[in-house]
Order: sequence, then C-alpha cells, then structure tokens
Amino acid sequence: MKALNRQIVLAARPNGHARPSDFEFVERPIPVPGDGEVLFRNLLISVDPYQRNLMGNASTELPPIDIGQTMPGPTVAVVERSGNPEFAVGDHVVSWSGWREYGLSDGSDLMKVDPEAAPLSTALGVLGHTGLTAWIGTTRFLDPKPGGTFVVTAAAGSVGSVAAQIAKLRGHRVVGIAGGPEKVRYLKEELGLDEAVDYKAPDFAEQLARALPDGIDTLFENVGGRLFEALMPYFNMKAQIVICGTIAQYAFPGASDGPNRLPELLKAFLYRFIVIRGFSLTDHFDAYPEFAVEMRSWVSQDRIRYREEFVDGFENIPGAFLRLFDGSNTGKLIARLG
Amino acid sequence: MKALNRQIVLAARPNGHARPSDFEFVERPIPVPGDGEVLFRNLLISVDPYQRNLMGNASTELPPIDIGQTMPGPTVAVVERSGNPEFAVGDHVVSWSGWREYGLSDGSDLMKVDPEAAPLSTALGVLGHTGLTAWIGTTRFLDPKPGGTFVVTAAAGSVGSVAAQIAKLRGHRVVGIAGGPEKVRYLKEELGLDEAVDYKAPDFAEQLARALPDGIDTLFENVGGRLFEALMPYFNMKAQIVICGTIAQYAFPGASDGPNRLPELLKAFLYRFIVIRGFSLTDHFDAYPEFAVEMRSWVSQDRIRYREEFVDGFENIPGAFLRLFDGSNTGKLIARLG
Repeated sequence: MKALNRQIVLAARPNGHARPSDFEFVERPIPVPGDGEVLFRNLLISVDPYQRNLMGNASTELPPIDIGQTMPGPTVAVVERSGNPEFAVGDHVVSWSGWREYGLSDGSDLMKVDPEAAPLSTALGVLGHTGLTAWIGTTRFLDPKPGGTFVVTAAAGSVGSVAAQIAKLRGHRVVGIAGGPEKVRYLKEELGLDEAVDYKAPDFAEQLARALPDGIDTLFENVGGRLFEALMPYFNMKAQIVICGTIAQYAFPGASDGPNRLPELLKAFLYRFIVIRGFSLTDHFDAYPEFAVEMRSWVSQDRIRYREEFVDGFENIPGAFLRLFDGSNTGKLIARLG
Repeated sequence: MKALNRQIVLAARPNGHARPSDFEFVERPIPVPGDGEVLFRNLLISVDPYQRNLMGNASTELPPIDIGQTMPGPTVAVVERSGNPEFAVGDHVVSWSGWREYGLSDGSDLMKVDPEAAPLSTALGVLGHTGLTAWIGTTRFLDPKPGGTFVVTAAAGSVGSVAAQIAKLRGHRVVGIAGGPEKVRYLKEELGLDEAVDYKAPDFAEQLARALPDGIDTLFENVGGRLFEALMPYFNMKAQIVICGTIAQYAFPGASDGPNRLPELLKAFLYRFIVIRGFSLTDHFDAYPEFAVEMRSWVSQDRIRYREEFVDGFENIPGAFLRLFDGSNTGKLIARLG
C-alpha cells in the first residue's frame, strides 16, 4: 500500500470553461478504517460533464463544492481493509468517493459489483448512472407514437447513445445529433440510427431539415443552448420532450446572447400542445433492479452497444475532463488508475 | 326581420395591436334557409383576445383568416326560421357564426341552450368555452400538492378567474396576478383569493416577493412575455405549469426584446424537475357534460363567481375588442345586440 492518498481538489472557481489551474493535486494520509468502516482503493474514476457544475460559476441551481474540496463523483474500487462485516478485502464496489486514490466509508454508500458479470467499467456507464439516466428518461416520461421521429442530442455521449438505442429497440425512427463526421458515422453504422446530423457541419441546417421531414415527435435533450433553439421549429403537435442535460450551458451561467427565444417556446406550448419536463434520477433509484436486468440482457445480446474512453493515470484526470467540453470525446469517459 | 345582415370582416392585417381600420362593416342579404338548414339571429357575440390571432401578423401558429372574411367566434342566437326538424323557431342555440347579425347552419355546429337554466350569456363564458378551458386546465393537467401555492395570471379574466376559484375550491393557497388596484380588490374581496398582485404597480417585484414566500408550485399561465419571465425564479422543485394563453405576446409575433431567457428555463427543467405543457381543448370536448354539471352546481351555489362586461350594439364590437388589450377589461366581454 502506498503511503499517501492523492486527491484532486477544487483550487479555483472557473469563469466559463474550466482550466487546469482550477484543480490542485494534494496528498493526504491514507485513512485507517475504524470499526464498521471500509478502506477502498479506486480502480476506475468516472469523469462526467455535470462535474463542471460542482465547481461554481456554472449554470446549475445546486450549490457548488467548497474550494479545497475533493471533486465528487462515482468510482469503482476494491476493498483493501474492512472493519465492516458486509465487505471483505478484495470485494469490488461502486463508491461516490470522487477524484481520489483511496476512500473510506461506513458502507452505506457502497454498492457491490460482480467483476465476473460484466466489465467493471460498465458499472460507471451503461449499467451505472448514465445508463440508468437514459433508461428512466426514455421509458418513464416519453411515450412516443409508433412510427414517430425520436431525436436525441449529444447522441454519441454516454447517456445519449443509450437513449437512442433504447428508442430504436422500441421501433421508433431515431435521429441522433452529434458533432463531427466520426460521431455521425458511429451513430449510423455502429448504433444503427436512422439518421445522424453533424451540428458542427457548415450545412447543419440543411442536414437537419433533411433528417426531419416529418418534424420531431419526441426529444431526449442533453445539450440546450443554440442547438435546442435550432430544434424548436421542428417540434410537432403534442411533441414530448425530456430535458436530461444542457451541456452547452454548463460553463456559462449567464448565457443569454442572441434574441430572446423564450416567447417562441411559450407559443409552441400554446399552439402545439407540447410537454417539456425535467426529472430527478433520485426519485427513480428504486427502479435500479428492473433497469439492471433489462440493460444487462440488452448489453449481453449486443442490442445496446456502448463506447468507453479510458484515460490512464490519476494525474491525467483534469486534462481528460477539460476535453469533455470541446466535443472530441465519444462515449463514457473513465480514468483508469495503475 | 331586417332586410340586411351586417357583418364585421377583416379589412387589413394589423401590425402589432389591432386598430379600428383593420375592420370593415359590410351588409349582405339575409340568407334563406334551405331544406335541413336553420336561420338564426345572434343575440350575444363573444369578444375574446384569441381573436387577434385570427387576423394575421400575430403570435399564432394557426393560419389567419382571409381579408374580407367575417371575424369568427361563438355567439348565442335565437332561431328565426328552420328547415331542420331538430330546431324550432324560438330555440336558443350557441353557434360559431362570429361577428354577424344573422347566421345560417345545417345544425351540426349548433348546441341548444336552455334560457331558464342560466342566463344566456353564461353559455359564452363560465358555462361555455372559457369556463371549460379553465376547468380542463386545472383539473386534467395540474395535480397540485396540498397546501402548495397555485398562481394564476390574468386572474381577473374570464378564464383566469374561474381557474383561480377552482383552485380555491380544491383547498390551495391561490395567488392571482392582474393589472390595477380594482382587479386586485376584486380578486381578494370578491373571489376570496389568498393574495393578489398588481403587475402594473411600480412595486410589482416587491408585491410578488411578498405574495410568494414559498415560491410557485402550480401555475395556470394566460399571459406569457415579461410576466412569465418575472415568475420563473419562483418556480419550485417539481413545479407544474399549464400554458393556457400568452395574451402579452399575441400582437407581437417577433417579440424578442431583452436578454434570451430560454437557457434559464431549460436550466429550470433540469435542476428543478419542472413540467410545462399546453393542451388542446378539442381533445376534451367529451368532458363537456361532466364539466357542465359541476360548473352549474358551483355557479348556482355562488361558489364560482363570474363577471360579464356587456357592450351594447353591433357597431361597438371592434372598439370593445381593442380595449381587451389595454388591460381595462374585467371578466368575460360580450356584445349584446338590440
């Protein structure tokens, strides 16, 4: 066991996009588990866009973490010492310990995972909170009409790609929106979506019009900002929309340039009878077992595919996180510790 | 019977608010009913804000009427001649014949009303389409939590005042928003709302803050525009919102001044898990009998109060219509023909 526990803490609140100097590496003693406690070593650390929101000066309504606090988030870990009879040395667990090498817990926030059942990394993605988010959003709130057009934004992302495939499994015409030709190829050729649109392309507006000859019946929205505004004219009568993320807005709390498009949206509610909602994942944690059975089955039959992007080495987490916001990432981003 | 049938037709499409010169009075022969047809004389003509939307250059997504076409809308009429066995001379009916003195119908769009059961004017208001709109919006889509704050905008209007009283009958804390001290007095003293806020007052922001110490759980929205923007910061977690009207926007299709508040609303969906929806009244016409029984009972027991404002004389309809948009009107506006 190493003598020290490296952690990445918030050093400064970003203005706009985060920068490397907003993070600081600190070394603290490895804690010693007391009675009932578990010491675990993180093997895999989740790196997610929403973590920008925890840093402050962000487009969130939740309070940010304190300066000096370790960046929070889920991890997969192995138990190294245990004073808790429910956990044995060598057990694998999902923890919420964040960007640190070692964590201590009383066990209440740990969930055991079986490394034989599926790759451990899937516990942070397709079989974890991102997969659950996609599954809840698509199955609990969207009731698309058969044959209708189902649009997913950030469709190559860890949540969007699963949502888009669930919609395909349910027989809908699915249009994915993502940035760049490689993601478009992935959506059409590997995930089998009906259409994919490149929002970065100079002919984005024309691509969108070609992909949506019959408008949008259902939208699983992960982006917000200008992309949402571009989709508004396509909302059909009685369109159903779930807002699952607004990644384009996260780093810009005051983002309000351009004309005020809010009156146009209110008008769409009135004349097109649309419904838009957000949802709280925590309200649906009790659905986890049902989700896990269905998603494990889909994944094992290759009916739901997923991509993971690994970054090796604890020290490379901040850089990988920053790249989440330049659109170059595809699939679930996971830091793999040595 | 008079020799000619006066009608008010669209003469020009307004830019912004409608003006008197946008209407023209024409006289046409009184039609003669053929076999199966009914000739009726209008007694009461409904004058409503949404009619601005029918004139063009408006914030609607529905096509406008043609220049030269009679302004459409509901009326209460008496049958003068009948070639239809279902209707006898002297029967009272609700028609959709619009701003004209006489109408002809095959009977399919006529609904008989009993002048003994309730004042005929209520068939255009509290027992007609405005009452039905309020009842559907509040009872079918809003499921407010007990003790929560239920806000109604344009609360002194024909739809808003009924929605606010239904919410009171269901035991909610109801806050009405309206323009001017007389409407505020009416809402608090005559309708018994818990609070009323004057959006025209210089201290509107302070009034709003005092009236909403616990935020907004449910919003029945009739106004849109800047007033909606002022309410957004008050939306509580899991707030439920029905967009029933956007009167502040009707005359201004391009209304988009000020900063872009759309990203803020998307953020509220994401972090406050709110739901906003429009609804189609025509989807719920089958609920009319249930509505009529409940609303007649409430009205007869003085549990739902309503105000009607009558304008006498066919020639005064355009002027009365224009005043709908200066905020001076209270309650349902009806033209009474001689």
